[in-house]
Amino acid sequence: MKYTVHFLPDDIKAKASQGENLLDVAARVGVYIHASCGGDGVCGKCKVKIVHGSSPTEKGSKLTADEQAKGYQLACNSSIDGDLVVQIPAKTKADGTALKRKPKTTRSISARSLDSLVGKWDVDPPVEKRFLKIDPPTSEDNVPDLQRLMRAIRKGCYDCEEPTYDHPAMLQDLPFILRQADWQVTVIMLRGKRAEEPDRIIAVEPGDTTSHFYGIAIDIGTTTLGGILLDLNTGKVLADASVYNSQIGYGEDVISRIIYSQRPTGLKELQEKVVGSINQIIASLCTKQGIAARDITYIMAAGNTVMSHLLMGLNPKFIREAPYVPICNQLPLARAAAIGIDAHPSVRLFLYPSVASYVGGDITSGVHACQMHKSPKITLFIDIGTNGEIVVGNNDWMICAACSAGPAFEGGGIKYGMRASAGAIENFHMDPDTLEPMIITIGHSKPCGICGSGLISIVAELLEAGVIDQQGKFNRKLNHPRLRESVDNYEYVLAWAKDTMPGEDIVITEVDIDNLVRAKGAMFAGYVSLLESVGMGFEDLDRVILAGNFGAYIDLERAISIGLLPDIDRELFFYLGNASLMGAQISLVDHKRFRERNQVSSLMTNMELSENPQFMNHYMASLFLPHTNMALFPSVQKKLS
Amino acid sequence: MKYTVHFLPDDIKAKASQGENLLDVAARVGVYIHASCGGDGVCGKCKVKIVHGSSPTEKGSKLTADEQAKGYQLACNSSIDGDLVVQIPAKTKADGTALKRKPKTTRSISARSLDSLVGKWDVDPPVEKRFLKIDPPTSEDNVPDLQRLMRAIRKGCYDCEEPTYDHPAMLQDLPFILRQADWQVTVIMLRGKRAEEPDRIIAVEPGDTTSHFYGIAIDIGTTTLGGILLDLNTGKVLADASVYNSQIGYGEDVISRIIYSQRPTGLKELQEKVVGSINQIIASLCTKQGIAARDITYIMAAGNTVMSHLLMGLNPKFIREAPYVPICNQLPLARAAAIGIDAHPSVRLFLYPSVASYVGGDITSGVHACQMHKSPKITLFIDIGTNGEIVVGNNDWMICAACSAGPAFEGGGIKYGMRASAGAIENFHMDPDTLEPMIITIGHSKPCGICGSGLISIVAELLEAGVIDQQGKFNRKLNHPRLRESVDNYEYVLAWAKDTMPGEDIVITEVDIDNLVRAKGAMFAGYVSLLESVGMGFEDLDRVILAGNFGAYIDLERAISIGLLPDIDRELFFYLGNASLMGAQISLVDHKRFRERNQVSSLMTNMELSENPQFMNHYMASLFLPHTNMALFPSVQKKLS
Repeated sequence: MKYTVHFLPDDIKAKASQGENLLDVAARVGVYIHASCGGDGVCGKCKVKIVHGSSPTEKGSKLTADEQAKGYQLACNSSIDGDLVVQIPAKTKADGTALKRKPKTTRSISARSLDSLVGKWDVDPPVEKRFLKIDPPTSEDNVPDLQRLMRAIRKGCYDCEEPTYDHPAMLQDLPFILRQADWQVTVIMLRGKRAEEPDRIIAVEPGDTTSHFYGIAIDIGTTTLGGILLDLNTGKVLADASVYNSQIGYGEDVISRIIYSQRPTGLKELQEKVVGSINQIIASLCTKQGIAARDITYIMAAGNTVMSHLLMGLNPKFIREAPYVPICNQLPLARAAAIGIDAHPSVRLFLYPSVASYVGGDITSGVHACQMHKSPKITLFIDIGTNGEIVVGNNDWMICAACSAGPAFEGGGIKYGMRASAGAIENFHMDPDTLEPMIITIGHSKPCGICGSGLISIVAELLEAGVIDQQGKFNRKLNHPRLRESVDNYEYVLAWAKDTMPGEDIVITEVDIDNLVRAKGAMFAGYVSLLESVGMGFEDLDRVILAGNFGAYIDLERAISIGLLPDIDRELFFYLGNASLMGAQISLVDHKRFRERNQVSSLMTNMELSENPQFMNHYMASLFLPHTNMALFPSVQKKLS
Repeated sequence: MKYTVHFLPDDIKAKASQGENLLDVAARVGVYIHASCGGDGVCGKCKVKIVHGSSPTEKGSKLTADEQAKGYQLACNSSIDGDLVVQIPAKTKADGTALKRKPKTTRSISARSLDSLVGKWDVDPPVEKRFLKIDPPTSEDNVPDLQRLMRAIRKGCYDCEEPTYDHPAMLQDLPFILRQADWQVTVIMLRGKRAEEPDRIIAVEPGDTTSHFYGIAIDIGTTTLGGILLDLNTGKVLADASVYNSQIGYGEDVISRIIYSQRPTGLKELQEKVVGSINQIIASLCTKQGIAARDITYIMAAGNTVMSHLLMGLNPKFIREAPYVPICNQLPLARAAAIGIDAHPSVRLFLYPSVASYVGGDITSGVHACQMHKSPKITLFIDIGTNGEIVVGNNDWMICAACSAGPAFEGGGIKYGMRASAGAIENFHMDPDTLEPMIITIGHSKPCGICGSGLISIVAELLEAGVIDQQGKFNRKLNHPRLRESVDNYEYVLAWAKDTMPGEDIVITEVDIDNLVRAKGAMFAGYVSLLESVGMGFEDLDRVILAGNFGAYIDLERAISIGLLPDIDRELFFYLGNASLMGAQISLVDHKRFRERNQVSSLMTNMELSENPQFMNHYMASLFLPHTNMALFPSVQKKLS
C-alpha cells in the first residue's frame, strides 16, 4: 500500500495499492459514495472529482463531456496509480443546503504482526531424504542388505536407535534397487511422531534424489479444500490450489453428509468424493510445479471431525446422535495410497487430531499455528461459520466449544443470500441522511445476492442509520422508497431491478435480519459461556484471534456493532487467515513444531453447549443488536445514542 | 518304559514300553537277532524263545508247531505286555560249536532332563485377551469410542502407556461392536515386542471371549512343516499336525527353490505353496480341536532364511550368489492374512530372525529354546541335515556356521536311499561272525530303501565288523555271499530280493559310503573349525545338543563310530527334538521368554565356512572313518583295534 488517497470533504486519508479500485478504497475506509450497481459502471452514480493526481479510468458514457472536462470520473471505473486527492460531490437537502457528511469508523482486522502470533519455524520437516553411499557386500562382510542400509544410516551416530521400516514393499525391492544403483541410494525416512519413537524408512530410491523433496499441506473444509505445495528443502510455498469439496453434491453441511453416509454405500461414496478432491488438489499443485505426484513425500492435513471420519472411511453415525461421540479424535499416520490418494504407496497422510465431534482437527491446527498453547496471554480464538468454533485459554488451559450458528454467515436462510462469489454484495455503506446505499460486489459485477460479510455490513449500517431498531425490526415510521412492506415481511431494497444481475430488486428482509441475529447470538453466547465457565469476562482477554477465510472480509467495527464480536480494545484483534492450513504448513516444515501438536489437543477441554442451560440464557440475551446488556457494548451504545 | 526285557545269552536288560515291538527293543539295546525282512514277519528268521513272561504274537506260519510249543515266537511279530526273559537261539559255527555272541554298546541320545535345557516358562503370552465393561457415553462424558476403550484398558493403571491400535479395520467396526455388545467387549492386545514398546490393540470382539484363546507355533522346514495348537490360557498343547512343504514339487533343497523363485511368477508361486501348507496345518489343528481359524490370536513360526524369505515374498536371489547376502535377518511382525494365511485379519505372524543366509530362524529358535544364551556352559549345538547348522558358545558369545553336508543324511545320493518313511531301513545290526544283517524298517514293512539313521547304523556296523576299512572301502579279501562286485562298484546286500518290497536286492555301495563320509566329514570339519576359531577343542565342551528330528533316531555310539559326532563323554550329549518348534512354542506362551530372543541373535556371529581354507583342511582330514587323527576318537580306536 504505497499510495495515499485523500478523500474530501470527509478529510479521510486512505492507503491504497497500485491498481486498486477507487470505490473499494473508499468503502474500506468508510467514505460513502453513492453506488447502486456494485461497481459495474452501469448506474453512473458514483461520480467523484479528481482534484489532484490522476487515476486511470474508462471514460464511461454515463458522464457528460462537461463532467469529464471538469475532472469527474466514475469511482468504480477508476484505479489507483499514484497519490490522489478525491472530492466527493456534495448532496443538497430539499432546502438547498449541502448535506453534512459524517465520516464513519471502519476497520478491517489486519493480518498485522502474524509473526508474533505464529512465531518462527525451522526448515526441518518430519520427513527426511538422505543420500547414502553404502559399502557393497564382500565375503568378509556379508551382512544382509537391510542391515547394511541401517549401518549406513547410523554411520557416525552410535547412540541412534535403529530405524523401523515399511514392510513388505520396501524390503521386496531393496536388493534390486541397491545393486542397480551401485549401492548409492536415497532413503526417505519419517521422523518419529514423538521424540522417543524411532525413525522409519518408508522408501529407498536409486541415486541421489534429495533435491526433489516436496510436501503438501491441505485444509479439508466441508465446502472447500485448500492446499499448498511446499519445497521441503527450503520451506517455501511453491504453489497453491483450491477446489470445492465434491461431497457437496450430498449436502452442504456436515449433518447432511452424516445422513448420506448411513446409506448402504454412502460412506464409501463420500470417502471417494473427498479423496477425489484431494487428488484434484495434488494434480493441480503438481502440474503448476511440473513435478509428479510420486515426488510428494508427506501430506499433512486438517479437517473437522466429520471430514476426518469420512476421509478415513470411519462411520460418523454417532457424531450426530446425542451424546455426540466420534469414533476417535486421534488417528495414526495412514498411508495415503491405501485410501486412494494419488501418492507414492509409502507416503503418509497425517490428519490433525480432533477435540470432539464438533471441534475438529482444523481448530487444533489453527490453535497450534498461532501458538496459544505456548503463550500466557488469555486468548479467544474464533472460527466463524455454520459451525462456529470457539477456544479460550492460554498455555495452562484451554476450553473449547462449537456453536451451531446456522448457515446465515454463508448466505443460508437469507432471501438473497449467496456464497462469497462474483456478484455477491460484500461491502455496504449507507448515506445516513438519504438512506441511499453504496454497494460493493465481489468482482465489481452487478449484484446478484448478499454474502456473509455483506450481510454484516448491511445490518450494521441499517442499525446505525436507525432504519432498523435493536430488535432488528424496520422503523415503520420511516417513509423511504427503498423501505417497503411485502406480502408477509418488511424489507429494504438494496438494489433496484435495473441494476441487478437477475433483473429483480435485491432486498434484505426482517426474516433475514432475524437469522443473522440468531447466528451472531449463538457465537456471542458461546464466548460468554466459555469465559463464564472459567470465571472470566471479556475484560480478561489479552487477544482475540479470528481464523477462517471469513475473518478476512469482516469489518471489525460493524461486527462489533451487531454484537458478533465483543466491544473491546480494537488492538487486541488479530486475523490469522486459513489457520488450519497454516498449522499444517508449519508442521510439515518443522518437525519440532509438529511434535508440539499433542500439547495443543491435551490442553483442550471440550464443552457441550447445545444442551447447556447457561448457554441458552446467554443466547436469548444475545438476540438483540448488539445485545440486551448494552453495558457490554459501550462504544456501540455511544454510536447509537 | 515300565517293563524289563532280559535278553539271553547276552545278559542285556532293556527297558521297554507297553506294546513295543520286541525286535525294536532288541535293536535298540544292540542285541543281535537275525532279521532280513525289516520286521514284516515274512522271512521267519527272527525266532526267539520266551523263557519267562508272555508276549502277544501273531503265530506266524513261519514257525513249526513244535517250535511254537517250545515257546518260540518271531520277535518281529511279538509285542511287549509285561516283563520278559527272552532267549536268542545259539548259532553254530561250521565246526558245530556255538558262536560266541559279543554284546554291543548302543545308545540313543535321550531327551533326558529336557527341563534342565529349556527351563521353566510362565503362561503369559505375547498376546492378551482382556474382557472390559465400558461406561456408556453420556452428555457429561462423551469422549470418543476409542478413548473410552483406552480408558477402560488403562483403568487402575496410571503409569501404563496408552496402547497403539490397528488402523483402520479396528476403528471402522468399533462403534458398532461397542453398542451391539452393550459396551461389554473383549480386546485382543499384542504386548510390545520389546518391554519399552506400548501394547497394541489388534481386535475388539463383542462379549467375553477370553475362554477361547489360542495360538499356533509352526516350524517351517524345507521338507516338512510341523505345527502345534496351544491353549494360551493354560499353555497346554492341544493338538499337533505336520504336512509336507508343498514347495517340494519345485525342488528338494533350498537352492533349487531359489532357482525356481527367479522365474517370472516363481516367487509368488513358492509363497503361495508354503502359505498353502501353513493353511493345511491350521485347518488340521482347528479341526482336531473343533475351533475356527478366526479363534487363533497369534502365529509364531521359525524357518530357515530361504523359507522365511519365500514366505514373506522376499526375493532370495542373492542368498545363492557369493557373498551370500539375505535381504534381512529380522522381519517385523507381519499380518498373517496379508500374505494369504487363513487367520483373523489382525492376527500377527512372527518369524524368528535369521543370523545369516544359511543359519536361519529355526536355529535361532532352537538356541533360544535351549537357553544357550543364558548358560555359562560351553555348548555345541548341532542340527544335522543337508544344510547342517552348528553353533558353539555360551551366554557370553556364540559363533555359528552352516555346513553344506549334502543330501546323504536324507537318503540323497545313496543308491537305495530314501526319506524316513515306511519301509526305510532305520536300524541295522550285523552278526560280527556270520556277517548276516538284522534289519529294522519303519513301520515293520518289507524294506524298500535306507534312510539317514539306517545309513549311519549300516556303515558303523560294516566298519566295526571289518567289512569296510577306515577309508570306507570293502574288504576285498572277504568271501561272503552278501559281499560282491557289481558293474563299477563293490556292494553289500542288505536284503535279498525275495524279502524286499521292490523285489530286488537292496544293497549299500562304496559310492554310498563315500557320500556318507563326505557328509559327516563336512559336519565334523564344521565343529573343529568353529571351535578352533575361538581357540578351543572338544575337551572344552560342557554339552552337545542335537536338534532336529534326525537326532531322535541317531544311535550315539554309531554316530561317534563313523565320526559324525565327537568321541567325548556320552553324558554330555542331549537331544532336544524339534528345537525350532519348541522355541516358537515357548515364545508363544511366555512373552518374557519371547523378549529374550534378541539376546540370542545379537550374540550369534556367523562364520562362512564355504570359502574358509582351514575348513577345507579339516574337511579333508575328516574323510576317514572316523577320522585321520585317531587320537580324536579314542573309544572308536579301542573298538576297532
